Amino acid sequence: MIKVPLKVPNHSYDIYIGQKILGESNYLEKFLGSDAIIILSNTTVASLHLNTLKENLNTERCFEYILPDGESEKNLKQFEAISTFMLQNKLDRRTVLIALGGGVVGDLGGFVAACYQRGIRYIQVPTTLLAQVDSSVGGKTAINHSLGKNMIGAFHQPSLVLSDTSLLETLPEREFISGIAEVIKYGLIKDYLFFEWLEKNIEHIMSRSPEALATVIRKSCENKRDVVSEDEKERGIRAILNLGHTFGHAIEKLTNYGSWLHGEAVAVGICMASRLSRDQGLISDESYSRIESILKKANLPTRAPTECSPDRMIEIMQGDKKSSNKEINLVLLREIGDAFLTRDYSDALLKQILDSGREA
Amino acid sequence: MIKVPLKVPNHSYDIYIGQKILGESNYLEKFLGSDAIIILSNTTVASLHLNTLKENLNTERCFEYILPDGESEKNLKQFEAISTFMLQNKLDRRTVLIALGGGVVGDLGGFVAACYQRGIRYIQVPTTLLAQVDSSVGGKTAINHSLGKNMIGAFHQPSLVLSDTSLLETLPEREFISGIAEVIKYGLIKDYLFFEWLEKNIEHIMSRSPEALATVIRKSCENKRDVVSEDEKERGIRAILNLGHTFGHAIEKLTNYGSWLHGEAVAVGICMASRLSRDQGLISDESYSRIESILKKANLPTRAPTECSPDRMIEIMQGDKKSSNKEINLVLLREIGDAFLTRDYSDALLKQILDSGREA
Repeated sequence: MIKVPLKVPNHSYDIYIGQKILGESNYLEKFLGSDAIIILSNTTVASLHLNTLKENLNTERCFEYILPDGESEKNLKQFEAISTFMLQNKLDRRTVLIALGGGVVGDLGGFVAACYQRGIRYIQVPTTLLAQVDSSVGGKTAINHSLGKNMIGAFHQPSLVLSDTSLLETLPEREFISGIAEVIKYGLIKDYLFFEWLEKNIEHIMSRSPEALATVIRKSCENKRDVVSEDEKERGIRAILNLGHTFGHAIEKLTNYGSWLHGEAVAVGICMASRLSRDQGLISDESYSRIESILKKANLPTRAPTECSPDRMIEIMQGDKKSSNKEINLVLLREIGDAFLTRDYSDALLKQILDSGREA
Repeated sequence: MIKVPLKVPNHSYDIYIGQKILGESNYLEKFLGSDAIIILSNTTVASLHLNTLKENLNTERCFEYILPDGESEKNLKQFEAISTFMLQNKLDRRTVLIALGGGVVGDLGGFVAACYQRGIRYIQVPTTLLAQVDSSVGGKTAINHSLGKNMIGAFHQPSLVLSDTSLLETLPEREFISGIAEVIKYGLIKDYLFFEWLEKNIEHIMSRSPEALATVIRKSCENKRDVVSEDEKERGIRAILNLGHTFGHAIEKLTNYGSWLHGEAVAVGICMASRLSRDQGLISDESYSRIESILKKANLPTRAPTECSPDRMIEIMQGDKKSSNKEINLVLLREIGDAFLTRDYSDALLKQILDSGREA
């Protein structure tokens, strides 16, 4: 079992990473006492893991709220329904919410916890690779709006994150791969040695070796932790965590948040940001090839679907949270392991890359 | 012009108090630059003060969202509607929200600002005495739920508070008086000298002398500031700001948030908490009389309406945010100027006070 401590102003918590730790109660006990618990999950995850979690909860006041599966549930309507359910059951502000699921459950559950009676504690039990390496860490919570993803949300740090690598065994291949995109991202933005390690170990990772996965999750969490500790509310350096995301969000939106998984869209975005970095003379041709190559070895897509025309992409990217006054700020690479946020690139080049970066 | 600086972890801001300061632009300028502005207000306040505010805003990107007047607008539906309006107008996260109004506009606007793209800056321009001495300071934002007041919300500090005493000239008498309840509260919970000053100056205050009002607002803000700086998120001492509120909220709820103003209900609550403090042997009979007497001089009610039966009051008070596991925690007085949160009182006494504290 690995413990990664995380500290932001006025709050600190631990991320526990290990095989079958959900079946061990001691990580949860100290938070719960006699306080009420509400477990938020979805139908798919609940059928696989809810009982394992509940066996360890020694409490009479344990409530469950099970959502349908899917990104479309991350909305204001569910936010209201969960809040209503909690009020109907007279849950007070000492209640602990446990988010058992992937990014949707974690983001929505975290936002409910952020706002319920002005904030209650919550525990992340991420069940996807993407959630274990990214969304469960750092305190970003949100719901989607029909006019944009994650547009309503809050910064609210969890009290504990339990990343059980054995939960990944049941994860569908496409979802697993989607998580790898964020893992590669950490190497690219600030950890060259981790990137090298990923290049060497990509086969072990793809075959889901528990040892390789534990390292993947630990290094990802540590890298994210280092950025978040420095800049909890994304006023500066934290923006580099969004490498590939401005492109990726536009792809997700243009495909109606349906056919493309988040990590797949981010992989294409990473590829586009890397090409822009190369064509702006920032990174070498060789570095670009290494990036494209590892994405391909992870079976991640590197080209956007044809319908993502440059004009439509740019229009959406102007509405990105990092953009201001229609100027698109992008995370680019100075080198593998060194990312920065900038507006200093050629619009013509961006357009060209958006155009050539599509499937033929 | 008086400036009260306020500092909580990672954030500091100033409260400006003075006559006709809304008509002077320099307090707003430094926050706004070229960033977009959205003014939230209601029809009543907008017709009186919106133009004065807008004359000082030197910007092409100024949007307005005007609500109907009333507490019932502080709901999730308006929260969504305002967020949608902001997204439709492509307002980015550098946008500043200005809440021009009383507690409803301030609480709702603050909550929108807390959640819009995970948090934008906002400025409070409180237009009621209650908002100037209480709700605009301290960063508590919220909306109501049909199952409870302020049940969904966030702690989100404003970037600036502009309290223009001249705005109080147009305030209806009943609303003005309602604000006095919170003012008296500050004296009771932690500032005996201020309580004495209030006793001596109650006539000047009731006639709305600008000098008396400036002192009232300054001392109230300073007292609230001192509590909030110590305990931003109400994990301890901040709870004393709720003297009378657990009773008051129950009265508001039992009268359907309609016929009773917040401050009126709080005044009755202060009276009940003071009587419980007296009957528990905490404060003297004389202290109790002084409290009842100043409330009466301020034309505030000291008795709950007949329909507020002890059983119904207690049921609602058990659901209060400060309560846990149905135990009602109450703010009581050790002496005028010394309040504390406790569960150490007799249930029989509480019931008796709830019963005898009603109108005959």
